[in-house]
Amino acid sequence: MSADNKPKRGISRRRVLGTSAAVAAAGATGLAGGLTAGRSGLISDAEAQTRQQQARPRTANKYEVKPGELDEYYVFFSSGQTGEVRILGLPSMRELMRIPVFNRDSATGWGQTNESLKILTEGLTPEAKEFLKNRGGIYTNGDLHHPHPSFTDGTYDGRYLFANDKSNTRICRIRLDIMKCDKILQIPNQSTVHGLRVQKYPRTGYVFCNGEDRVPVPNDGKILDDPTKYVASFTAVDGDTMKVAWQIQVNGNLDNVDADYQGKYAWATCYNSEEGVTLAETMANEQDWVVVFNIKRIEEAVKQGKAKMIGGIPVLDGRKGSPYTRYIPVANSPHGINTAPDGIHFVANGKLSPTVTVFDARKLDDLFDDKIQPRDVVVAEPELGLGPLHTAYDGRGNAYTTLFLDSQIVKWNIDLAKRAYKGEKVNPIIQKLDVHYQPGHNHTSMGQTKEADGKWLLSLNKFSKDRYLNVGPLKPENDQLIDISGDKMVLVHDSPSFAEPHDATIVHRSKINPLHVWKRDDPFFADAVQQAKADNVVLETDNKVVRDGNKVRVYMTSAAPAFGLEQFTVKQGDEVTVYVTNIDDVEDLTHGFCINNYGINMEIGPQQTSSVTFTADQAGVYWYYCTWFCHAMHMEMQGRMLVEPRNA
Amino acid sequence: MSADNKPKRGISRRRVLGTSAAVAAAGATGLAGGLTAGRSGLISDAEAQTRQQQARPRTANKYEVKPGELDEYYVFFSSGQTGEVRILGLPSMRELMRIPVFNRDSATGWGQTNESLKILTEGLTPEAKEFLKNRGGIYTNGDLHHPHPSFTDGTYDGRYLFANDKSNTRICRIRLDIMKCDKILQIPNQSTVHGLRVQKYPRTGYVFCNGEDRVPVPNDGKILDDPTKYVASFTAVDGDTMKVAWQIQVNGNLDNVDADYQGKYAWATCYNSEEGVTLAETMANEQDWVVVFNIKRIEEAVKQGKAKMIGGIPVLDGRKGSPYTRYIPVANSPHGINTAPDGIHFVANGKLSPTVTVFDARKLDDLFDDKIQPRDVVVAEPELGLGPLHTAYDGRGNAYTTLFLDSQIVKWNIDLAKRAYKGEKVNPIIQKLDVHYQPGHNHTSMGQTKEADGKWLLSLNKFSKDRYLNVGPLKPENDQLIDISGDKMVLVHDSPSFAEPHDATIVHRSKINPLHVWKRDDPFFADAVQQAKADNVVLETDNKVVRDGNKVRVYMTSAAPAFGLEQFTVKQGDEVTVYVTNIDDVEDLTHGFCINNYGINMEIGPQQTSSVTFTADQAGVYWYYCTWFCHAMHMEMQGRMLVEPRNA
Repeated sequence: MSADNKPKRGISRRRVLGTSAAVAAAGATGLAGGLTAGRSGLISDAEAQTRQQQARPRTANKYEVKPGELDEYYVFFSSGQTGEVRILGLPSMRELMRIPVFNRDSATGWGQTNESLKILTEGLTPEAKEFLKNRGGIYTNGDLHHPHPSFTDGTYDGRYLFANDKSNTRICRIRLDIMKCDKILQIPNQSTVHGLRVQKYPRTGYVFCNGEDRVPVPNDGKILDDPTKYVASFTAVDGDTMKVAWQIQVNGNLDNVDADYQGKYAWATCYNSEEGVTLAETMANEQDWVVVFNIKRIEEAVKQGKAKMIGGIPVLDGRKGSPYTRYIPVANSPHGINTAPDGIHFVANGKLSPTVTVFDARKLDDLFDDKIQPRDVVVAEPELGLGPLHTAYDGRGNAYTTLFLDSQIVKWNIDLAKRAYKGEKVNPIIQKLDVHYQPGHNHTSMGQTKEADGKWLLSLNKFSKDRYLNVGPLKPENDQLIDISGDKMVLVHDSPSFAEPHDATIVHRSKINPLHVWKRDDPFFADAVQQAKADNVVLETDNKVVRDGNKVRVYMTSAAPAFGLEQFTVKQGDEVTVYVTNIDDVEDLTHGFCINNYGINMEIGPQQTSSVTFTADQAGVYWYYCTWFCHAMHMEMQGRMLVEPRNA
Repeated sequence: MSADNKPKRGISRRRVLGTSAAVAAAGATGLAGGLTAGRSGLISDAEAQTRQQQARPRTANKYEVKPGELDEYYVFFSSGQTGEVRILGLPSMRELMRIPVFNRDSATGWGQTNESLKILTEGLTPEAKEFLKNRGGIYTNGDLHHPHPSFTDGTYDGRYLFANDKSNTRICRIRLDIMKCDKILQIPNQSTVHGLRVQKYPRTGYVFCNGEDRVPVPNDGKILDDPTKYVASFTAVDGDTMKVAWQIQVNGNLDNVDADYQGKYAWATCYNSEEGVTLAETMANEQDWVVVFNIKRIEEAVKQGKAKMIGGIPVLDGRKGSPYTRYIPVANSPHGINTAPDGIHFVANGKLSPTVTVFDARKLDDLFDDKIQPRDVVVAEPELGLGPLHTAYDGRGNAYTTLFLDSQIVKWNIDLAKRAYKGEKVNPIIQKLDVHYQPGHNHTSMGQTKEADGKWLLSLNKFSKDRYLNVGPLKPENDQLIDISGDKMVLVHDSPSFAEPHDATIVHRSKINPLHVWKRDDPFFADAVQQAKADNVVLETDNKVVRDGNKVRVYMTSAAPAFGLEQFTVKQGDEVTVYVTNIDDVEDLTHGFCINNYGINMEIGPQQTSSVTFTADQAGVYWYYCTWFCHAMHMEMQGRMLVEPRNA
């Protein structure tokens, strides 16, 4: 790589080094038209241009959703530090559901029911289990950043949604048939999971998890203030089993990640190549990296037993010089990384540089075979504006990049950027649109799949300031809906959100097909079914109390407006488990079970069984009642738990 | 009271007994025109009619709020079993903020910061404190039903919002200047707080809290399955001190409550006059009651020392026959009770009867002086449809009642209903509008004040079924926005909500004036200020660690994009308190403080100090980072907590 063949840093320098002659020459070695759309979504440049012509709609989108009309898209929103996943409808931007995940939820009993506690605890590391012993056994906070649905053959398959918890180094899986989290895994040997995306081809498959912070491994206090011994890791989790498949130790701090449409590579932005621990140290160098992971080589090495078992998982050394990784220099502190729907390009966003760097995935085989230099993979590096963070696509060859500092979305054309990079006098920028204010992630409808449809763009803005009625010192963020179906971007709606929206995925409703009521054989409550069997209880019909030493199992049905038991009696000090089976099979007829002054509440959907275990510490009469409105006589749906005093 | 002079029950009987001749005669004894609008908002019938003519706008409301435009109203929504309060903007129906109250909130650290833990614990009963010892010290669930802002002289004054927790018998106060909960009180001698409303005149003043379930007092297990010894109570809390002022024991189960515009009376619906404990027992009688409380008599009795101190508060016996209460018969199981803006009428909603019962507040003095019979206070009892639950008003003499079973809102005229009750052949019903589905509470803009403006109506529907994209077995509820400014109600928007919206209050934006950033002398974090003073620390400038035995107090500032301390060191087993003072004074510039893998996260608004205490149980290197996006270098805003091993 020549001296010029490297990126430079600095928001203040609006001149892009990537357009130097040397880089332009390197960029010209593209392998245009090498693959077709039929296989894995990869198309030629020519094909992409044809699509661009065909796909452009003539009229603007309809964005009003009238009473009773349905939205066209599901949007899976992260909630940032709120720890939940939200489902919104688009274009109405109405919140349709909250899915509790890395939080404690009062309405559903998430973090209290036996079913949720199993999910929240079974995937914790042994160290965390020990740590949480005096803290109720679970984390009650999370920082959920990146929600991504599972893929088959380059598009969404409606099975799962995966997301990360930056705060306590976990990932979760949400079943899209019931819209509930069914698995949580804490990643060993890692501090935080930041960037998360999934394998697009042939299917998910892998969930790629970026370890951001560098820490000692193991992090047991033997190494403390010696950052040279810290390390960050990249982890692949098997989305089907929700176990770690392998982990790769890297240089620097990993930020965001994405994957290809061929099942061969994943790529991550990587900052702090200095491996410092203070802001000043982290910012010292002029460049950082995009790290590319060679999935086949890694799988082969793991198969050959080359990985060390650390913290119970196979770990490879992927630091600079390893066969598993390539470190491609880019300007200091790159942030988002986004694969284009054409299956060819991926873009790293400069953050501190006003540029984005465009890579050609078809060159990576040569890079790993050491036939070309790292920067030879770069095919464009347009200067877009201040603070480029994330890029989305419309499937018509255009890209939409958030400019954090400029508070804008810039629409630009990939092909024009490539031509400019080769030296042609063309401007890749098509339009800049003001957003309000400081956008982070953005997302286009189906834009992270090969089926990008170019209709809608969301800009997830970190500040709202004056855009809403003042609600005190804490403000909502501002998610803005932008119509991109025409030649110009048009802002159509401001949508406030609590805590960080952080990231979102827009999925066409044809891809998602949830159940209307629970199935009685759902694995979600299989433990309750098994326990009932052991107690000779038929959950759907029996209402009885089974005593087993000081353990009491209370089985009852619920059918609006009555619980199967109008009262039950236990002794003070008993460990009580209440199983409620909702035998209503009417859609939307959810029951709740709340015990007054006992701090207990849970949701029981139609045909679901839910259970909760507690110690009957306090004697007296405690009413339980239904909390999810079910009937005209809902308020009368109650009963009494009589707790006999210990010494009576 | 004659044999005919009582209401009858039953949804199947659509004939209303209230319109019998005897009742009509009794109803004719009204005291029309006795008071004027100048004093306490009470106006004559004639004046009310004049207003009705003047106030009706000619054109329909504008309901689209374009990007950057502000809403006209704040709506304070309950969230039911979610336990939080939500602020929505109306007419856009966008959620502007969540206020954590009776829940655990991951994003703000509610239930974890020292400031929130103090609020969540200091108002608990001694029994609850004991009970929660092995449960982390706090309830993490709640069931927040009725949010009501404070009044001065019959309208909102922007000071506070009060709400109840049905599940753990608490009420809360939210400061509307900072939009945070600052007080929580658990009511002694009571099981649940269900209905909650506030004193409208001269000011709030009292917060009226209905105890719904009947339980033994004290509820310590000595009395168990002996319902004859159970009792329910009505409690008045002083909204300024958030201490119980007095409590009245009653017959039956109290449901909803409201108050007058004169500061003399509060009234509550009351079911289960049978005092049974099963659904069948509760439904046995043909009638239940509206209970009226005479505030002056109660205050006088408390002053004279007639109350018994029970559970640390003054308790009076207000059961039938007492001077403090009157029990007015109405049909079985009445539900909502709503005072009209005219200051004269209040309406109890039939639920199981197709009628609502209209009372004239001006007759209550005579009732308490035993000059008239209880039912003589009734001035109308129109038959409206199946399942009337709650009634709202437009300030033009019309009322809007939710019909749960018919899934409709019925608009009717109070004056016409009174004329019909007197025997005239007029139909009080103006229009019925379908809602979707099963409405519970409804609310009009400013409709619970003397300034009802008749522009908007919200119908809070308990089922949404097919109104939204399917999100699995658990569905959102459906809050519908209805334009009532014209002659006809017009449905304009469907708004989904998670868990029960339950109830809401629509407040004109002119009434609310929140702060933009915190004031440094805010009592919310006064304890931190006091501790810093004792440690000779200036919170706004100092960054230092104070060791005090095994207690370590870490003081740091935050200013985007850096914490004042890039690292601090503690010993394994130390009790660590971290105080973060956000010295940014830019609006919307909130910081977060999250310790990775330590389950800690909190919000620190501009100019706020927040603190959290934990035990450093696990040795090692733990990064802390900012969770509320603050700056282009937000992700680099971090530092290290080094925990030295206990035996090192």
